[in-house]
Parts: sequence; structure tokens; C-alpha cells
Amino acid sequence: MKTQNEARNLSMVMDLYELTMGNGYFTDGNKDGRVVFDVFYRNNPDKGGFSIFAGLGQIIEYIENLHFDDNDIAYLKSLGIFNEDFLEYLRNFKFKGDIYALEEGTVMYPGEPVITVIAPLIDAQLIETAILLEVNHQSLIATKTRRICYAAGNRLVSDFGARRAHNMDAAVYGARAAFIGGASSTATVLAGQMFGIPLSGTMAHSWVMFFEDEFLAFKKYAQTYPDMTVLLVDTYDVLRSGIPNAIKTAKEVLEPMGKRLKGIRLDSGDLAYLSKKARKMLDNAGLNDCMIVASNSLDEFTIQSLITQGACIDSFGVGERLITSKSEPVFGAVYKISAVENNGVFEPRIKVSENIEKITNPGLKKLYRVYDENNKAIADIIAEYNEELEGLSETDYIDPLKPWKRRSFKGCRFVKLQKQIFKDGRFTGTKRSVQEIAAYVRRQLDNEIWVEEQRFENPHRHYLDMTPGYYNMKRNLLAAVRE
Amino acid sequence: MKTQNEARNLSMVMDLYELTMGNGYFTDGNKDGRVVFDVFYRNNPDKGGFSIFAGLGQIIEYIENLHFDDNDIAYLKSLGIFNEDFLEYLRNFKFKGDIYALEEGTVMYPGEPVITVIAPLIDAQLIETAILLEVNHQSLIATKTRRICYAAGNRLVSDFGARRAHNMDAAVYGARAAFIGGASSTATVLAGQMFGIPLSGTMAHSWVMFFEDEFLAFKKYAQTYPDMTVLLVDTYDVLRSGIPNAIKTAKEVLEPMGKRLKGIRLDSGDLAYLSKKARKMLDNAGLNDCMIVASNSLDEFTIQSLITQGACIDSFGVGERLITSKSEPVFGAVYKISAVENNGVFEPRIKVSENIEKITNPGLKKLYRVYDENNKAIADIIAEYNEELEGLSETDYIDPLKPWKRRSFKGCRFVKLQKQIFKDGRFTGTKRSVQEIAAYVRRQLDNEIWVEEQRFENPHRHYLDMTPGYYNMKRNLLAAVRE
Repeated sequence: MKTQNEARNLSMVMDLYELTMGNGYFTDGNKDGRVVFDVFYRNNPDKGGFSIFAGLGQIIEYIENLHFDDNDIAYLKSLGIFNEDFLEYLRNFKFKGDIYALEEGTVMYPGEPVITVIAPLIDAQLIETAILLEVNHQSLIATKTRRICYAAGNRLVSDFGARRAHNMDAAVYGARAAFIGGASSTATVLAGQMFGIPLSGTMAHSWVMFFEDEFLAFKKYAQTYPDMTVLLVDTYDVLRSGIPNAIKTAKEVLEPMGKRLKGIRLDSGDLAYLSKKARKMLDNAGLNDCMIVASNSLDEFTIQSLITQGACIDSFGVGERLITSKSEPVFGAVYKISAVENNGVFEPRIKVSENIEKITNPGLKKLYRVYDENNKAIADIIAEYNEELEGLSETDYIDPLKPWKRRSFKGCRFVKLQKQIFKDGRFTGTKRSVQEIAAYVRRQLDNEIWVEEQRFENPHRHYLDMTPGYYNMKRNLLAAVRE
Repeated sequence: MKTQNEARNLSMVMDLYELTMGNGYFTDGNKDGRVVFDVFYRNNPDKGGFSIFAGLGQIIEYIENLHFDDNDIAYLKSLGIFNEDFLEYLRNFKFKGDIYALEEGTVMYPGEPVITVIAPLIDAQLIETAILLEVNHQSLIATKTRRICYAAGNRLVSDFGARRAHNMDAAVYGARAAFIGGASSTATVLAGQMFGIPLSGTMAHSWVMFFEDEFLAFKKYAQTYPDMTVLLVDTYDVLRSGIPNAIKTAKEVLEPMGKRLKGIRLDSGDLAYLSKKARKMLDNAGLNDCMIVASNSLDEFTIQSLITQGACIDSFGVGERLITSKSEPVFGAVYKISAVENNGVFEPRIKVSENIEKITNPGLKKLYRVYDENNKAIADIIAEYNEELEGLSETDYIDPLKPWKRRSFKGCRFVKLQKQIFKDGRFTGTKRSVQEIAAYVRRQLDNEIWVEEQRFENPHRHYLDMTPGYYNMKRNLLAAVRE
């Protein structure tokens, strides 16, 4: 089966300036000049302690499928701004560069290069928009979902968001990212079909309202799905009608079939109050094993509050605030040039902005994660490209926020975070299933990432250090540019 | 050329419960029972006075293409929860119902039915998710863009959002919705190609950083695009380097070719301060016709503030806050059953929720817009299905928030807002281009919609009234259900 991205040509999902700059480089004779671009982001959403790197699977698909067909060339020609030779060049274009990236699902921090593209100028430019779009969307949703799951503790979280997603792809790839971030299932059928994500769903109010009365609606549903009966109890009145009818269904419809009522769902009202009342009513009827599912504009904050209040909820259906990351719907990864090849040497470039936080980390570089003897990730460190830290057990470093202190990591392990995934335009990495990626996220959170970075309130700020060599290179370059 | 939605099968972008309920209705022998569903929403984003109805074009595509292919059936079968006969039924499924909807681009208000589906139960259920997703996404972005354009006054607004969009469709259909809402152009090439939306774009910082110095970068760009030279001036230092080099480019590169510098772009720093300084420097150099374009996390609030401060900005590039509707990224349209056919009569259904604002408007109904003698839309009114107001010049009405007052519209014109677009599953409406839709939006805002509804602060709340017949039917039904 073709994936959504194979069935259609998405190549033209790019900003016009990628093509106008490409045309400019081409006509200026610069099309083969190689450059380095880094993808990084500046702030964790919701003032969190970290983010989850996601979207790489679709970046790979985009780059592998990147091409301009006859319709595309004809359209670009109609704009009247491109050189004919450039359009011919595009007609035969295939991406030719190298790409290094974090494994999808890696816990990431502001300021560090998560993807590095080393490619001819035009190639590097043409993939910018798609790379950013995928990283920004899926990292946003994975990171948001991780927060929601953190709040939910060991209770299940399902993605119910499709109807409020920002169009089709946001529903499908949002479900993918949510699963990476820790959701146990999705309601979006295509996401189940494409990625093997478990599906979940109960019934709509319309089911209850279609039948003459609530009990009849419950009875019909239980007869159809005796092994998975979850009844929506808030269509008319939760405590006076919904729960009593659910109990009656359990007793009169399911138990004679030797079945148990699997759950009820609350979708409105005061979920803390209603869930506690419902729990008591169900328990009194001997339905201690009947789960209570809650939904209705939930997010990590409402879930945390419900749990604090002692709400009796076993499972959360989370929709609009997950699928749009409502509290912070923008993930701000950017794509910045960091070096330009000149006679075989990559000369570093730096962007000095009016806004100090927009100053970039120049040059071809390596990113390492530093693990202590307990296998905790205590810092990340940027090194010069020719500095090899893997295999070392100690190294000097500089914290760029306190550069006057000279410190060393001792008894540590250094792991290079970026792996090569494209070489000369050919994919050379490993494609991971979403199940593998989700398991990798859990493994990091359970074992490697400090719990102090995982809390919501004032999370510990992960250190992003630099080797003395890298730090001095950056400082000197900055000084030179400022002159 | 196939559209994105024709090239791929999006049918399975639906919540699982649409299928489990469908299977339940099927096995219960209810598959042909006809029902009525209404789409409506409860609140305008950002406390605005109205919203813009968008996304209908893609709903039509979805319904026309809705089908389950062999892969889909095999996948559904693998879930082990569906009746074999139901799966066979799905294999041959085509939508068979009637649909009525507002014209795309219609100014809409909370609580009123904007789409009404009259269809066999299963048909009505299977299209729920896609209808909501498209209405919610595109109405959100169109409404947000309208706000941004309102703040910008007669200055141009371009959509620069693709890289922060919630995946590919959000970039492409978000650009579509932005154009409907008043954007003059987009940077997203595929949106230009698919919908004929004008494209815009300048250059990235990487262009400036690739060359040895800023002037050389500007010179190369001006030589490539002498008729559309817009220079990004904030890579190093706007006032000490960017603007002087832009002026030098105008004088030394463009003027000898008989060309003028078209514009400069500011993408960081204090846009109010920098734009005023830049304007003065450009004017002093005789470049009074050089436009100033601004970008960098703009929205209606920052634009309003910039204009209040006297910023000298001619055109705004708006990205992340437009394409995600950052201040309010969820549009809350819902799909609620309002009637069930019984012996040829549509019996009204009402949902009584724990949350009072979730009580629905029952029954098959008609929605009219009421225009006064100046052609201003002074109210909307819900009537019973058999009440014909078109052609009348006066009618009694009840404001459901003040039902004790009995009032009449006099000297008015009543226009039915919903038009039939599907009959027995066949599209019978008119497909509109985005240019037609955008022109229709402008026409309404310029001529029909009160300016008091268009402001941001405490906009006038549009009246949604009811005919006495409709109001009494709802009141009686509510009383009956509450017993």
C-alpha cells in the first residue's frame, strides 16, 4: 500500500524563496558550492525541560520523493521569474547531499543541531521548508503528548483529536507523533492502518439520541459489542439516567451473556465530581471492574488537577488540546546556514541578529550526549567536527552561559547523537517503526533523562556545553563579524 | 492535474466510532433509517464578532471520493470487530444523502446550522470526522487571517507560514483559507499551483550569509531579480550595515540598469523603531518608493500595535501565528443529530448536557439572514422547516436570550443561507474558486456586516433569533425530555 506521501507529489510544498534563491545560485554559477545547514530550536513548548524529536520518517519520504514533474515545471515557468536552464535543471533534480540527524524520538534540547545537511547550495535550500514543517509539527505533538501522559501517570491516554486537527495530515501524522509521545491509541482509523497504532473509540451522543431512549441505545450497543461495551453516559443526565442505565445494561444485557461492562465515558460536566459519584454507584452495583473514561477539552493541566482532586478516572480521551498543542501551537525549529565550503574547507558562518537569542552556532560540528556512571544524561556538548569524544571518559568543557568557569566531565561516557541518514543523496540510515520509536522514547524517559527535567514547574535546565576548541572558534568568529 | 485529495484515499481519516456505530446500525437493521445532523460552533475565536465559513471545497472532494478499497476492507477485517456483511456493504459504499450548506466564505455566527446532512444513518455518520476537520481547520485560519488583515488596514498581508504549519495539508489548505480570509499572497508554492493564489517571497538569511559580504549578496540578488529586488537587511546590523548596503545596491546596481529597489525586509529587532529609521534613511537617499516589508512572529495584535506606534511598514509577512492561529488554535464546530425520520416524518431530537451551552437546536430547520433596508445583516433567524420567510418583508421573532420580549422585523429582506449541494449522494451545487470565495468574503465585510461586529474589543453580538414556531417547538421538546 502506498503511503499518503507516496501517492501524491508534495515536492512543491516549499516557500517560493527556496526556488528564487536556487535560481539565483544557479544563474550565478554557484549551484555546486557545498554548504552546511543546521536545524535547531530555541525554546521548549510550555516552558518544559526538553522536547521530543519527531517527524524524521516523513522528512526521509519527502527527500526520497523530491522531484519536479511536467506540471510543476510548467507552473514555475508560468511565473515568469526563472531561468530556462534552471527549470531544465529542476526537471532532472534529485537530492544529492549528505544528512545527519538524531534518531527519531531522541530527547532534545534548545540550541543543539538536531539535523545537519551538508549539500550543494540548491539541494540544501530546496528541502528547508519540508524539513522544518515536519520537525515542527511532529515534535510539537510528540512533546505535548508526553506532557499529557506524564500528568496521567499510569492511566491510558488516547488521541481523539482528528476533528479538530489542522487538516488531514495533522490528524494522521499528529496521531503518529502522539503515539511517539506516549499515547496508547488513536481514534483516527487511517493512522491505525498506516502505522499499526492501536485504535480506540466508544460511541457518539448521536447513537444514544437515535434510539427512543437511553437504555435501548445502551442495550443495542452492548448486544453488538459485548466484549468492548463502553457506554457514553452524559447525553441526558449522568447520575440520574446515564449511570443507572449503564448499570441496568450490565445486569440485564451483559451479565446474562456472561459478559462484563467494560466502561463508561463522561464527556461533559464536572469530571472530578461526576467520576467519584459514578465510581461509587458502579462499585455499589458490583461493577468494580468497569473503567471510567473521561474526555472534554483535556490537557496536562486539567488532568493533573483531576488527579489531585481524586477523580476516579482510568483512561483519558484527549482531543483538541493534544492535536493542536493548544497551549503552545508553534514549535520554532529553524534552519540556519553554518558553513560554506571554500577550496575543500568548510568555513564557519554566524548570524548576528538584533535579538541576541537568534545568534547561531557556527561551523561544522558534532553533538554529544554526556552520560554519568548511572547512565543519566547530565549534559550535551557541542564539539568541533574533528574532535572525537566517543571512547573518552573525561574532557574539559565550557558552559557558554558561564564561560569564566573551566570545568571537566570525569568518569563519563560520550555518545554522538547525530547519525548519517543520507549519503550523496541516497538514504543510508535505518527506517524505524513508530512502535520502535515510541519504545525508544520510553526507554530514555525511564532510564536516562533526569526526573528533574521532566516536571512541569521550573524543570532543571539541561546543560548545553561546548568544548574549549568549539567555544573559542565561535567567540573569535563573533568578534571578527562584529568588526 | 489531480488535486492532493484526488491522488490519495483519505476515506479512512475518520474516528473509529463512526465505523463501530455504522456496524451497530447495520447489524441492528437500521442502516437505511434517515437522520438529520447539523454542523454548528459555539464560540468565535479570539472573542471575535463572527467567523468565516471555510473548508467546504474539501468536504465536497472528500464526500465525492469516499470509498473503501480492498486494503481498507482488509485492514478493517483485521480489527476483528466488524460484521462480514457490514464490510461487504462498505466495499460498495457510496454516500447517498442530501447536504445543505452555507456558501463557502459566508460570515457565520455561533449556534446556527452551517451544514445540514439529511442521510441514511451510516452515511451521515461516516462523513462526520472529515466534515468537522475541514470546517474547523479552514474556518479557523480564514477567521484568523481576516483579523490580521483588519489590523493591517490597507497594507498587504502575505502568508509565510508553511514551515510552522501542522504538516503538509495545513500549509496548503491553510494558505487556501488565508487567501479566503484576506491574505493577498502566500509563500507556499503548491498552494499557488493548486489554487492560483499569487506567490510571494524574498530571500533568506542564508543567501546573505553565503556570500563573503552583505553588499555582494545584495548585488547578486539585484542582478538576478532587477524587477523584484526585496533585500533582507537584518542579517548583521540593520541600521549600520543592512540599510546602507541596500541603498548602495539601489544606487550602484539597480539605477544604472534603470531599475528601482522594490523593497527591504525587516525580520528581527524592534520593528517600530527600525522601520521608522529605515524609512528616513531610504527617503534621504531618494528611495521613497522602496517598500518596507516586516515579518517575525506577527499577528493582529502586534500589527495593530506597530501601526499605532507609527511604524513605517507597507506589507506584512505573517507566518506561525497565522498558520496555526496561535492565540486560539482550536475551532470548535460540532456535528449533532437533530432529527430522526419515523414513518416519513423527521422527529426532532435534542441533546441536554450538563453544560448548558451544549444544549442543541433540535429538528429539521431553516436559517435565514435578515437584511435591513440598507442591506445590513441585522440578525439571523432559525425557522421551522416549513416556514418560508423569503419574499416576506416582516415577521415576528423571539430572541432566545430574552424570550419574554415579542418583536417583529419590519421592512426587511430574508435570505435563506443554506443551499443544497448534494442530492441523493450526487453533488448538485456550484464549485467556487478561491478567488470567487475571497471576493464574496470582501463583499460581505465591505457592504453587509456591521462594522461594530468587526472590531476586536467587545464586538457587537449578532442576534440569532427564532421564529415563534421554532422557539415553542424547542421549548416543548426540552420540557418533555426533562420529564
